Amino acid sequence: MESLKGIAASNGIAIAKAYLLVEPDLSFEKQTVDDGNAEVERFRTALEKSKEELKLIQSHAAEKLGADKAAIFEAHLLVLSDPELTGPIEEKITGEKTNAEAALKETADMFVSMFEQMDNDYMKERAADIRDVTKRVLSHLLGVQIPNPSMISEEVVVIANDLTPSDTAQLNRQFVKGFATDIGGRTSHSAIMARSLEIPAVVGTKTATAEIKNGDLVIVDGLKGEVHINPAADLVEEYGKISEQYELQKAEWAKLVNEKTISADNHHVELVANIGSPNDLKAVIENGGEGVGLFRTEFLYMGRDQLPSEEEQFNAYKAVLEGLNGKPVVIRTLDIGGDKKLPYLSLPEELNPFLGVRAIRLCLIEQDIFRTQLRALLRASNYGNLKIMFPMIATLDEFREAKKIFTEEKQKLLADGQQVSDQIELGIMVEIPSTAVLADQFAKEVDFFSIGTNDLIQYTMAADRMNQGVSYLYQPYSPSILRLVKMVIDAAHAEGKWAGMCGEMAGDETAIPLLLGLGLDEFSMSATSILRARSQIRKLKKTAMEELTKTVLQMQTTSQVIEAVHQATK
Amino acid sequence: MESLKGIAASNGIAIAKAYLLVEPDLSFEKQTVDDGNAEVERFRTALEKSKEELKLIQSHAAEKLGADKAAIFEAHLLVLSDPELTGPIEEKITGEKTNAEAALKETADMFVSMFEQMDNDYMKERAADIRDVTKRVLSHLLGVQIPNPSMISEEVVVIANDLTPSDTAQLNRQFVKGFATDIGGRTSHSAIMARSLEIPAVVGTKTATAEIKNGDLVIVDGLKGEVHINPAADLVEEYGKISEQYELQKAEWAKLVNEKTISADNHHVELVANIGSPNDLKAVIENGGEGVGLFRTEFLYMGRDQLPSEEEQFNAYKAVLEGLNGKPVVIRTLDIGGDKKLPYLSLPEELNPFLGVRAIRLCLIEQDIFRTQLRALLRASNYGNLKIMFPMIATLDEFREAKKIFTEEKQKLLADGQQVSDQIELGIMVEIPSTAVLADQFAKEVDFFSIGTNDLIQYTMAADRMNQGVSYLYQPYSPSILRLVKMVIDAAHAEGKWAGMCGEMAGDETAIPLLLGLGLDEFSMSATSILRARSQIRKLKKTAMEELTKTVLQMQTTSQVIEAVHQATK
Repeated sequence: MESLKGIAASNGIAIAKAYLLVEPDLSFEKQTVDDGNAEVERFRTALEKSKEELKLIQSHAAEKLGADKAAIFEAHLLVLSDPELTGPIEEKITGEKTNAEAALKETADMFVSMFEQMDNDYMKERAADIRDVTKRVLSHLLGVQIPNPSMISEEVVVIANDLTPSDTAQLNRQFVKGFATDIGGRTSHSAIMARSLEIPAVVGTKTATAEIKNGDLVIVDGLKGEVHINPAADLVEEYGKISEQYELQKAEWAKLVNEKTISADNHHVELVANIGSPNDLKAVIENGGEGVGLFRTEFLYMGRDQLPSEEEQFNAYKAVLEGLNGKPVVIRTLDIGGDKKLPYLSLPEELNPFLGVRAIRLCLIEQDIFRTQLRALLRASNYGNLKIMFPMIATLDEFREAKKIFTEEKQKLLADGQQVSDQIELGIMVEIPSTAVLADQFAKEVDFFSIGTNDLIQYTMAADRMNQGVSYLYQPYSPSILRLVKMVIDAAHAEGKWAGMCGEMAGDETAIPLLLGLGLDEFSMSATSILRARSQIRKLKKTAMEELTKTVLQMQTTSQVIEAVHQATK
Repeated sequence: MESLKGIAASNGIAIAKAYLLVEPDLSFEKQTVDDGNAEVERFRTALEKSKEELKLIQSHAAEKLGADKAAIFEAHLLVLSDPELTGPIEEKITGEKTNAEAALKETADMFVSMFEQMDNDYMKERAADIRDVTKRVLSHLLGVQIPNPSMISEEVVVIANDLTPSDTAQLNRQFVKGFATDIGGRTSHSAIMARSLEIPAVVGTKTATAEIKNGDLVIVDGLKGEVHINPAADLVEEYGKISEQYELQKAEWAKLVNEKTISADNHHVELVANIGSPNDLKAVIENGGEGVGLFRTEFLYMGRDQLPSEEEQFNAYKAVLEGLNGKPVVIRTLDIGGDKKLPYLSLPEELNPFLGVRAIRLCLIEQDIFRTQLRALLRASNYGNLKIMFPMIATLDEFREAKKIFTEEKQKLLADGQQVSDQIELGIMVEIPSTAVLADQFAKEVDFFSIGTNDLIQYTMAADRMNQGVSYLYQPYSPSILRLVKMVIDAAHAEGKWAGMCGEMAGDETAIPLLLGLGLDEFSMSATSILRARSQIRKLKKTAMEELTKTVLQMQTTSQVIEAVHQATK
């Protein structure tokens, strides 16, 4: 039995067989073959196996995901049956005596580059299809397997280097009981996704894909951040008990769903949810969320091939506002660029995308995109309690420019006789050190702050939060981060405004006592963390936490702060 | 006549013909030729032209740069005469009827990949040679020209997309009168190099390489940041006068070389220099530098194929300390990693290198490198007034760890009976927001601070200082940056320590009044800026600047601050 240590990314225990979601090695050597006809036969066999496999995947997809999603596999099957592709491959094998792998790859590459050079979206998609099916046929020639996550039909723990948004979209929630990845931290996509799906997860194990084989029995301990490979029977039994206890605790928390979030000395704070689409509303309501503190609007722009129309956006915003039934909904304008790209929006490559043209910086350049979103938001404002916030604001000039554009669009809509709420609050994300340091000046002009700790920590520490090599610097409890948080909260209160937090820190058990002590008004987190946080806050005294924060703000290191919090709250 | 607007990177005026330092387009299509023999002839002609060109470059290099540097061209000539390379190319042309470009490229690529796969440094160098000569022969086949900066033999203005350290190393200072680049800002390598060489330069023009042709007459106005292409005669005349005035002003400044730097109300500050190698000492002394505020030790590690030995480093540090004759010398430990790579030190690729494993982060991992440097520094400490500073410190834990290693090496040397100064101050660069915010705690343990504004600004604003798209956020005069600078200076003084600045901001005319007002003790800048800065400070009253800074710290935007400084100092 072996164990790996990683980062606890999503609470809970999972015990199941491993399913490796890893790209196989498809490399090969170009060779000359003696018997061209036998090689053609080998090629045809691989072709047939690929077709059978695709038919299986297709029918599975049609059943589980709808005809829409299955269509892509239909396209792949057509490519495999196209003599214009298979003909030249077979000719290359018999004529040049090349091995099937090289004949396939070289011919396919030629078509791919030909199609890609055409200025035609349809042909570009065909190029992508050819690339995909080439991989599949190659895998059969080489006798390796391409994983098909959509085909998982038994309970598994998924093991991957990292999980991309498109990977997770394909996973069947019914069967995927947990996952473990090589890379990533608590704020990586896979970690956030795991919490939102309530799937236990451990990320950043470094070697999971190397150490674990398909079919190994695996325990994912999302509470402690451990992964056990082929565990002994007594460990499996022990984990059964831990899992049971965790379920009991969750049942206790569930009783708080309709309670207010009030500290032991009667101070009220708001516990709200981070969401990514209207589909997440159900979880917000089930977990007793008092509103939405961060609606990431990127989902509307991703996984498609053109910008969403004003109407589409309007409908999505309206759905969320109506779904929350008058509770506050903070919608963040588009945070794209940097590491988040859109296929239909060509942006220059950047050496340091996290320090590049992203979010509001991009929106102030690509004003058409920004204005369309603001119009959709303005129109939706009639259907609930809308607050809008701008991401990545670094200077007051940027906020003023964004507000000016907002006001222009509002005036246009009013001039057109459309109705627009007069109560929309305009706030900013505080995720850039510059803005935290100058929060007193910002507070005179914005309606609220929402502290985005994921980015604020990475910039304040100058450490990429996705980079394992500097993960030791991702220190939410550092006295310097806490001082910046205090500056922001104090600045808001001095001007009669409110301050929230929508980074991962807001739902963190060690951070919550400090944030309560610093006077944070609104805590926005994964919906699935709300009940646990409410239970925690109801046991804390705000006055005691104020004393605690006074002490920790004068401390020198993160470990001192963690120790002090544990002492004060044990 | 056309004019381009860019960033004034190095003062002065240059008027000369344009020399484009731009990689030509070497792309081609693979084609079938009818007459293989004629194509072989075409190949041989290109080969001969390449050899002639190389011989010319070689003899030029031997004369100007020494036999050492010329050897590389000898190696290139050998490759071009090697039948093992040219044979297969000609066979491919006659046998497969491929055009010469494709036959050359495909054959060369095969050798390159073969040699690169061998685990042998000699063969890897051969691969590099083949790649270089392939480009040269291709250029002759395609009828385009590869620039040879070492061949420049008349006065020119160099026009480039950007200038790399190896480009600038090849430039003949005698003939290069100025330069203009498409990209870069005031803190990019090319800008710093221009100031150190006292060559007028304008960077970030965006389109210089597109708008300017070889041989165009060009004015580079490094005072205003303008480039004029084929200017009218009256403009050339006008610039002659501006240039003359500038020379007169420089003569005025030169009179201050042996004066102290004292404000109009008798407050003394130190004006010291940023240097990159012992070769820069001459300029420091000629320009009246009161010491060295930043010795970048990277030069010792770059442009070579193995780590420098302790002895080599010792000699370099000793030379600088002796050269300064008891004046303070602040030596920064290795700041490598991120965007600065060493060929012999393999580091993982990072998505955001500026937020990655660089400087002290790398040194605390690669401790052998760090310990060797510290031993060399400790041994050199007997020869002058040495202060050591660690770059990219983000937490007190990091400083303590670095200091512990320093102390260990000191104890080892003492135990070995070696002499080591007991007066070495240990300080840190403050270039990460976290450290500025927590400066009061750091001040209890460090001997001094040196504020590195280039990085501090980029992290505080979350804007890559090399990225044109966010260059508007590089705001040294932002109230938020000034507040952080104040925190650091106040923290130092509260503990009886001193605070310096070694970023570009320290030599900036608009920043100097503010830094004087904030109480900065030491200003470290390009040696060529020292006399101008001294002249400026002697005209300012510190008390008035203190009043000015009180006002600007409560301002909202950078433009307000700039306006206030101009009002207060006009």
